[in-house]
Amino acid sequence: MTFFRTFLSSIADAGRELLDGRPGRGAKSADINTLCADLITQKGEALGTALACAVVDAYRDCDEDQKRTFFTTLLTDFDVNQQVLNEAIAAYQADANPTTAHDVAMAAESMRQRVIRGINMAPGGTRAVINMREDLLPLLQAEPGLKTVDSDFKHLLSSWFNRGFLELRRIDWSTPANILEKLIAYEAVHEIRDWDDLRRRLDSDRRCYAFFHPALPDEPLIFVEVALVSGLAGSVQELLDESIARIAPNDADTAIFYSISNCQKGLRGISFGNFLIKQVVAELRGELPGLKTFSTLSPLPGFGHWLQSMRGKSGSLDAVLDLIKEPDWQANPDLTDKVQMPLMQLCAHYLVHEKRRGGPLDGVARFHLGNGARLERINWLGDVSPKGVEESASLLVNYKYDLANIESNHEAFANDGKIVHSKQVGEQLAASAQFMAT
Amino acid sequence: MTFFRTFLSSIADAGRELLDGRPGRGAKSADINTLCADLITQKGEALGTALACAVVDAYRDCDEDQKRTFFTTLLTDFDVNQQVLNEAIAAYQADANPTTAHDVAMAAESMRQRVIRGINMAPGGTRAVINMREDLLPLLQAEPGLKTVDSDFKHLLSSWFNRGFLELRRIDWSTPANILEKLIAYEAVHEIRDWDDLRRRLDSDRRCYAFFHPALPDEPLIFVEVALVSGLAGSVQELLDESIARIAPNDADTAIFYSISNCQKGLRGISFGNFLIKQVVAELRGELPGLKTFSTLSPLPGFGHWLQSMRGKSGSLDAVLDLIKEPDWQANPDLTDKVQMPLMQLCAHYLVHEKRRGGPLDGVARFHLGNGARLERINWLGDVSPKGVEESASLLVNYKYDLANIESNHEAFANDGKIVHSKQVGEQLAASAQFMAT
Amino acid sequence: MTFFRTFLSSIADAGRELLDGRPGRGAKSADINTLCADLITQKGEALGTALACAVVDAYRDCDEDQKRTFFTTLLTDFDVNQQVLNEAIAAYQADANPTTAHDVAMAAESMRQRVIRGINMAPGGTRAVINMREDLLPLLQAEPGLKTVDSDFKHLLSSWFNRGFLELRRIDWSTPANILEKLIAYEAVHEIRDWDDLRRRLDSDRRCYAFFHPALPDEPLIFVEVALVSGLAGSVQELLDESIARIAPNDADTAIFYSISNCQKGLRGISFGNFLIKQVVAELRGELPGLKTFSTLSPLPGFGHWLQSMRGKSGSLDAVLDLIKEPDWQANPDLTDKVQMPLMQLCAHYLVHEKRRGGPLDGVARFHLGNGARLERINWLGDVSPKGVEESASLLVNYKYDLANIESNHEAFANDGKIVHSKQVGEQLAASAQFMAT
Amino acid sequence: MTFFRTFLSSIADAGRELLDGRPGRGAKSADINTLCADLITQKGEALGTALACAVVDAYRDCDEDQKRTFFTTLLTDFDVNQQVLNEAIAAYQADANPTTAHDVAMAAESMRQRVIRGINMAPGGTRAVINMREDLLPLLQAEPGLKTVDSDFKHLLSSWFNRGFLELRRIDWSTPANILEKLIAYEAVHEIRDWDDLRRRLDSDRRCYAFFHPALPDEPLIFVEVALVSGLAGSVQELLDESIARIAPNDADTAIFYSISNCQKGLRGISFGNFLIKQVVAELRGELPGLKTFSTLSPLPGFGHWLQSMRGKSGSLDAVLDLIKEPDWQANPDLTDKVQMPLMQLCAHYLVHEKRRGGPLDGVARFHLGNGARLERINWLGDVSPKGVEESASLLVNYKYDLANIESNHEAFANDGKIVHSKQVGEQLAASAQFMAT
Repeated sequence: MTFFRTFLSSIADAGRELLDGRPGRGAKSADINTLCADLITQKGEALGTALACAVVDAYRDCDEDQKRTFFTTLLTDFDVNQQVLNEAIAAYQADANPTTAHDVAMAAESMRQRVIRGINMAPGGTRAVINMREDLLPLLQAEPGLKTVDSDFKHLLSSWFNRGFLELRRIDWSTPANILEKLIAYEAVHEIRDWDDLRRRLDSDRRCYAFFHPALPDEPLIFVEVALVSGLAGSVQELLDESIARIAPNDADTAIFYSISNCQKGLRGISFGNFLIKQVVAELRGELPGLKTFSTLSPLPGFGHWLQSMRGKSGSLDAVLDLIKEPDWQANPDLTDKVQMPLMQLCAHYLVHEKRRGGPLDGVARFHLGNGARLERINWLGDVSPKGVEESASLLVNYKYDLANIESNHEAFANDGKIVHSKQVGEQLAASAQFMAT
Repeated sequence: MTFFRTFLSSIADAGRELLDGRPGRGAKSADINTLCADLITQKGEALGTALACAVVDAYRDCDEDQKRTFFTTLLTDFDVNQQVLNEAIAAYQADANPTTAHDVAMAAESMRQRVIRGINMAPGGTRAVINMREDLLPLLQAEPGLKTVDSDFKHLLSSWFNRGFLELRRIDWSTPANILEKLIAYEAVHEIRDWDDLRRRLDSDRRCYAFFHPALPDEPLIFVEVALVSGLAGSVQELLDESIARIAPNDADTAIFYSISNCQKGLRGISFGNFLIKQVVAELRGELPGLKTFSTLSPLPGFGHWLQSMRGKSGSLDAVLDLIKEPDWQANPDLTDKVQMPLMQLCAHYLVHEKRRGGPLDGVARFHLGNGARLERINWLGDVSPKGVEESASLLVNYKYDLANIESNHEAFANDGKIVHSKQVGEQLAASAQFMAT
Repeated sequence: MTFFRTFLSSIADAGRELLDGRPGRGAKSADINTLCADLITQKGEALGTALACAVVDAYRDCDEDQKRTFFTTLLTDFDVNQQVLNEAIAAYQADANPTTAHDVAMAAESMRQRVIRGINMAPGGTRAVINMREDLLPLLQAEPGLKTVDSDFKHLLSSWFNRGFLELRRIDWSTPANILEKLIAYEAVHEIRDWDDLRRRLDSDRRCYAFFHPALPDEPLIFVEVALVSGLAGSVQELLDESIARIAPNDADTAIFYSISNCQKGLRGISFGNFLIKQVVAELRGELPGLKTFSTLSPLPGFGHWLQSMRGKSGSLDAVLDLIKEPDWQANPDLTDKVQMPLMQLCAHYLVHEKRRGGPLDGVARFHLGNGARLERINWLGDVSPKGVEESASLLVNYKYDLANIESNHEAFANDGKIVHSKQVGEQLAASAQFMAT
Repeated sequence: MTFFRTFLSSIADAGRELLDGRPGRGAKSADINTLCADLITQKGEALGTALACAVVDAYRDCDEDQKRTFFTTLLTDFDVNQQVLNEAIAAYQADANPTTAHDVAMAAESMRQRVIRGINMAPGGTRAVINMREDLLPLLQAEPGLKTVDSDFKHLLSSWFNRGFLELRRIDWSTPANILEKLIAYEAVHEIRDWDDLRRRLDSDRRCYAFFHPALPDEPLIFVEVALVSGLAGSVQELLDESIARIAPNDADTAIFYSISNCQKGLRGISFGNFLIKQVVAELRGELPGLKTFSTLSPLPGFGHWLQSMRGKSGSLDAVLDLIKEPDWQANPDLTDKVQMPLMQLCAHYLVHEKRRGGPLDGVARFHLGNGARLERINWLGDVSPKGVEESASLLVNYKYDLANIESNHEAFANDGKIVHSKQVGEQLAASAQFMAT
């Protein structure tokens, strides 16, 4: 690694030297678009990674306006060559066959993609490309024309971050601190408060795995936190409580995936989570043959909002909504006694029957059910944090991954829209009808 | 690595289990094209890498005929969706802009590319994709229609083997034997006879560097062999002779790149050599500040053939050709005295003036001059092996890489077709006119 | 590492199996002294590491009383064989020569040493031996007879932790967290408050190095913290202040060794510090040629106490002591103006003239001066923490390490008791006479 | 590793600089004995590893005579301080107790040991100490006085190469070539002809393990070659034959340890083999649960010689001896038919009844039986190489390691001199009486 870093910097230095040799301009002052233009001519070949380094350096020195200009220029000045494309289209239209179609594809590939591939050649180039997309994404709403630029970035990043290039690594307390601090920074579901909290999550009865890409050796792409327990866990506070009894890994029969977080904004929309879960299941089965059940403990981030949107649907539903208007209702046993059954039934309805574009309305449900998991259990007071109460009415859901049924579950879901669930959820679903009657 | 391998096999096992669960078929017997079709539906997402493993396994079991059928099916059954492409073209023709052009590109991307990306997800998938292309290449002459399939393979492999993902590693005698044996197998310029010969080439006065890709950790992609010497070396036999005096690396002033070999047939046409040379120059400068000159010692594989083709051009040229008809002329001082000057002059002419498609006729010259190297010296009796005498009339050429001039050399070459050369070569060139006068 | 750990546990299991095969006893219940006795017979050879594992396991299960008994038994039951020793002595006395002297040495080596060597064979045995000594040391005051047992432990540990077996490793923010947390735990000079404080100490303008032993790969033995600065630093609070400006390492001309801490109680009295400093000097010189000065910033842990013990020595000294009776005097400019000069002069006297057993009374001074460092500068308000004010009257000392003078400094110190110091310290020393006049 | 090497050389340079600073002498010209004397004074502490490096350098430059002088000086000038020893002895004789005995041990430890410990501090010091002993051993026969010097070397090396510090590593085809070439050099039982032969021995149905010491990371200390087979193997030629069918490791039920070789002459007499075999057994059991039998395939290096020494013992024995006087008798079926039974019976007698100093006369038998192995089978025509026929009359022996019985076998052997053997060997033993009757 040391060698490699030294080497990279010697490359970069050599690159700067190459460019400094040009009369009248150094890398710093060079116009980034001119550099990009050079990068995709034969000159890019000849100057090796020097031009790519120069683009990376120049971009790093750009302010927000200059970055926006850069993206806009990518859109306008590095698009397709229309004449070439038109000719390819004409040939295809004259004789549509695989070859002419392929020629259309080649001609329709924008020069932007060649620029992005060129930038990636620099040491640290992959990081730079991801950073560029991270800068680009927030601009899309105001400038939808840039979506085409984003498509080119996403297309290449999807190809480069193909699952076959990702490396699964276990994260534990012997992992370098510069990686561990990123878990603290990126944890998106249940905040990691500090290093002690992190250490607890990496204890002997826990597992944490992340995907890494070789070009970003110190940067997790996505990570999952797992608790090894006895029986299905239903409360995340219990899992995270430091005072809870620890179990010897070999005595655990259940692995609970209680948090999964993406780390790289610049890779948004490039999915790793489905691979990660299944491969961690495979890994854990190999390490700990005593594990029989693999299940998530998942939030329902849209349930609270949906619930409020249902007001007026029925008197009994409104009655439930009135009860949970009370602040801190989840800590009031009188109230929880009354709303527990109704809310769990409504939750079953929400997960199974509320749809958007043919799939479950709830994004987390859509993800796990689409992966072939089964809706196993709804947990009362599973997350009593303010966020949990607000967003999920305190509920958490177990989605169960059983490798033997993943394909059939998935087929039922994908072909027939059928959500495979446990008998218990089925009963809650049946009971939910009372609230939905108009 | 051990962990990773264990993990990969557990993944593969899990994958097989997933598929074995399907009623009525196991991975082995599954039709490879059905598997490929599944791979690019939503099912590919859900079954993770299992389907990709199954394709890899199934392909491995194919015989030659089945492989040919597989490629043909890729061409015919996994092409573009013409209806979608036609619609995209119509939209583009109605309003040609970056977005509609981008949509054409997306629509014109064949399903083959999605299949290949899917296969790459398997453990060992990158290796499998390269092997597929290695199997495909020899079929192209007989079945030119498959060139479109090859274009898809090459397009993706070029993107994946982007220089930014390659790792330069030094190879020496402490390199694992399973990598070293590949140097013996792949050396393409000056055969490595055995392990003793290899060891000599990895000695303290030698350097060897190779590019690796993270998905093929034990497979060099290309490697270069370098000798550290005092002054420009002109004879490869002297360099390879075990009896030659060894120099302390810190005393060397010159690095001679005397052999560069590609290793992966399946990556044909994807160029690494230009990056490799420049980065090894950068690396060596960092390690050994005493090095002042970086030069190749290169063959002229087409010189012998060209020379014969010139018979009849002039009487003086024919006289030279007559002299070297003598077997073993290179070992006969009477003959070598007579032909040395003429052959070196003719060589200067051949390198500088003989062209094909605008560039030097000689492939090696085209490569180094296009990289920005300068034609430095022609060496008499540089390679007296039978192959060297036959192909290059015993001559070897030094192309000099001077980072400070690479860009200007390249520009002169690329824009004006000018070949930058030393004064000595210039004189030989001037003298060559006598042979070319008709 | 993973492989190695797996292997170690398989060894340990095999060992337990070996022992469980014995009729009537398992490792757990086995009497630790019987196991030790077996360990040094031929049986120890035959059973490999199994017996050693059993001793380690059994010791781990001992309570304090059992441990004390174990050490006492080592003293009494695993001593020398007096008959053999007497015979060897008789032979030596009859003919004193290297061979008979050597035989005395062999005969006088206690069986304890063989026991300790035997225990070390177990996986984790070195750790166990160090832990044993850590348990033993606090018993010595009450049971001085055990000092002989301690001598045997120390003798072997000194041999095993020979500098030639130690590995210097740089510690930085990419070091595994399980090692970093040990820095926090073991820092003995300037407490590391938390992970943020640690991270600051591992920043780009800092260096931290530790010695490790291969048998304890995750356990630093001793570590030193270095700040890269411009000019000699005199205040540790400034160094540790997060708000201080950071310097690019290549711009630094001075390396300040501001903290050095031993980590293993069980290795007490086995000195690594002198090696560590010199080797870090060598390492830093190699990495950063701009560094010209290497100096400590050291406390004077005995100065405060000595100062109080001097009361009555002279009126002027008593006057100083009266002024610093004021709480928080170091924060009162009126007071510090008055005591600065006197305290620095008294400090010069303390460091140079106050002796114990021929060396400096101050332990830190004894260490650095004995290493060949030179007494460079006394720093006013160098450490204004409560501990610094209490123990060192706020002063810190720079001891300068100049490789070119280490030998001559050391010789002057060792042979003539001469303390090499700067001119400035010499002037302070001269002025100190006023306080020491009776 | 790179870092470490760089560091070591910077240390060595710093050391040389320290010493070059001395007026009037540099490291090269310094008298090695003066350097050794300095090394054990306080100066050794102060100058860190510089003096140790100087000793190592100076020794490397010594010729044979200078080395002999060095060892002689170690004997005479670096012995004990007799006055100190006499005082310690007097105190012990006045009051013999653990403390006075310990003081005798300390006083009787020669200064040589301190010198050797000092040398070990240098980078490469452990290698240097081993090399010194390798140079010393051949001198002992001519100068038996040096045996005491050798005892000091051996004593320290035994302590440093304690099994707890050794690392077991698997050797395979991905092991660095600089380690593999040492297997070729050191193989002592069945010569490795070339790299192809080596590769065959590292194939998927083979295992090779070696012990390494952290101070010699590229140097195997001892290695064992194992073949995974089905059923007990009896012929080494079959095992080494490249044409033999290979078995999948998971299908093997037997591991045959067919060669074990020590690598470091300077570590002669320090035993690793007993640990190695048992730990490889443990390792293989963990990796391949299908393995049920662990057995050696061992030569009987003294059998041929003993057989000849028995001439005249009985007529029947002499008849056998006459038959095997025939050259190449092992290839003559008429002869082998006649001598097979008698030779195997005589072999059983030789292994079980022929003793030296209470143990088996045969060194290999003594080693394995002392380790707790059982004499399992004698193999006819097990090694038909010229060496095998000459030394072992073509026989090879299987010694079986069964962890469950190692202790009881060992006890029977150690306490009662009993050799545990199979029923078959018992029958051969009984039949052997006919040849031994006088």
